[in-house]
Amino acid sequence: MRICRIAHPGGIDYAVLEEEGFALLLDPFEAQPRTTGVRVPAARARLLAPIEPRTVVGMAHNTGPADRALPPAAFLKAARSVIGPGAQVRLPDDGGHVVAEGELAMVIGRDTAGVRPVDLLSCVLGFTAANDVTDRAAQSRDPLWTEAKSRHTFTPIGPWIETDLDPADVAITLAVNGSEAKTASTRDLARDPGEVLAYLSRLMPLGPGDLVLTGAPAPAVPISAGDDVSIRVEGLGELVNPVEAFPLPDGLAA
Amino acid sequence: MRICRIAHPGGIDYAVLEEEGFALLLDPFEAQPRTTGVRVPAARARLLAPIEPRTVVGMAHNTGPADRALPPAAFLKAARSVIGPGAQVRLPDDGGHVVAEGELAMVIGRDTAGVRPVDLLSCVLGFTAANDVTDRAAQSRDPLWTEAKSRHTFTPIGPWIETDLDPADVAITLAVNGSEAKTASTRDLARDPGEVLAYLSRLMPLGPGDLVLTGAPAPAVPISAGDDVSIRVEGLGELVNPVEAFPLPDGLAA
Repeated sequence: MRICRIAHPGGIDYAVLEEEGFALLLDPFEAQPRTTGVRVPAARARLLAPIEPRTVVGMAHNTGPADRALPPAAFLKAARSVIGPGAQVRLPDDGGHVVAEGELAMVIGRDTAGVRPVDLLSCVLGFTAANDVTDRAAQSRDPLWTEAKSRHTFTPIGPWIETDLDPADVAITLAVNGSEAKTASTRDLARDPGEVLAYLSRLMPLGPGDLVLTGAPAPAVPISAGDDVSIRVEGLGELVNPVEAFPLPDGLAA
Repeated sequence: MRICRIAHPGGIDYAVLEEEGFALLLDPFEAQPRTTGVRVPAARARLLAPIEPRTVVGMAHNTGPADRALPPAAFLKAARSVIGPGAQVRLPDDGGHVVAEGELAMVIGRDTAGVRPVDLLSCVLGFTAANDVTDRAAQSRDPLWTEAKSRHTFTPIGPWIETDLDPADVAITLAVNGSEAKTASTRDLARDPGEVLAYLSRLMPLGPGDLVLTGAPAPAVPISAGDDVSIRVEGLGELVNPVEAFPLPDGLAA
């Protein structure tokens, strides 16, 4: 099942993707999500970020197997940095050196508190593609990574939540302007999604709608104003976002 | 006005504190919040965290004036680490070295996007007391501070949101088991609340209900299981939380 969040003439709703459009959902976090009976044709709907998380957490240095030598470490991204498919990634007005990172993200479906580590993957509602946009210049001057990771628009996710996906070995392709820059598989991650959840759930509470970025198995790619950046996840879909410069209006500049 | 969030026989609601109890509010973020007409006596209500933020952000090294020599830096705390007055702060099962930090926190009332720096304080709905619980042991081994700052229960806030407070010079007293450990004023902060908002609002979107911890003007104090820790903010009120050890249940230990 592909769970979407859509804007349509009737408002904003969760919905299931069907051949001709969308079937609205009562509550995607129900054990057996039910449709409302209302359908929206594709032409009348726009895909939004498939979730509005309270927590967005990513894994630091979780790329190739060499990272297993490092202790696991996580970082938070501001929940309001999340944007949906097609929305603009806005480059900071101070230039920076911004890169895209293509990742598989887990959407949590139920509270992880008290769940045994071996059962944690059962708390995952599904998966979505994520672009963990990062300002390398800010990252090098701020060891907390807040500015580097949490700027407005720095967490594109989508296009939907795929509930039927085995995360063990899916290819992630990062492309800029249609040119395929990098492909790698989640099997290359130092710590797999189950290990990531086991680490995080000891550290902090996770609950319905929270988003866990599992790490980029392939190198990051620089992005510039005017680019279109795409993250394609095998068996899931493609997340595309335009990149724009975002000068602050007069009176807001430093 | 003191805006509370309460659990009562009718559910969970925002309310205004009155002499004999609480007057329920329709929406605390309205320009002129209206009461519903329903009153709840104090004996039938329990204070919860006065807000459920999407973003919890704190200022790093924003203590004494010497910190002005450092560039401003912010860190995120997991939104789900927020707890209310009287709720247990749970110490990590690995021991750690946990300290309490007494801070004045701003509760954002409206979107800060596009607001001129000089007008940002008008986006603040009010103020609450915050205990920025921090695991110093984790902080020294993790430069990202995620484990140190975002553990479950590590952000007690309350007891309510005071809308009529000038944040420029309020005394904050941190006490453990009734013994007044430290008192200092927000006027000692390296960067005042207006400067903090000016820095943060360039960095990330802030919106209704978000919580900004302004920094601890006084030194942190170690806390242990069995302690009661209190943050008293002049003109606002007192936030008290018990501290408990929290061994993980069998099967959840590392």
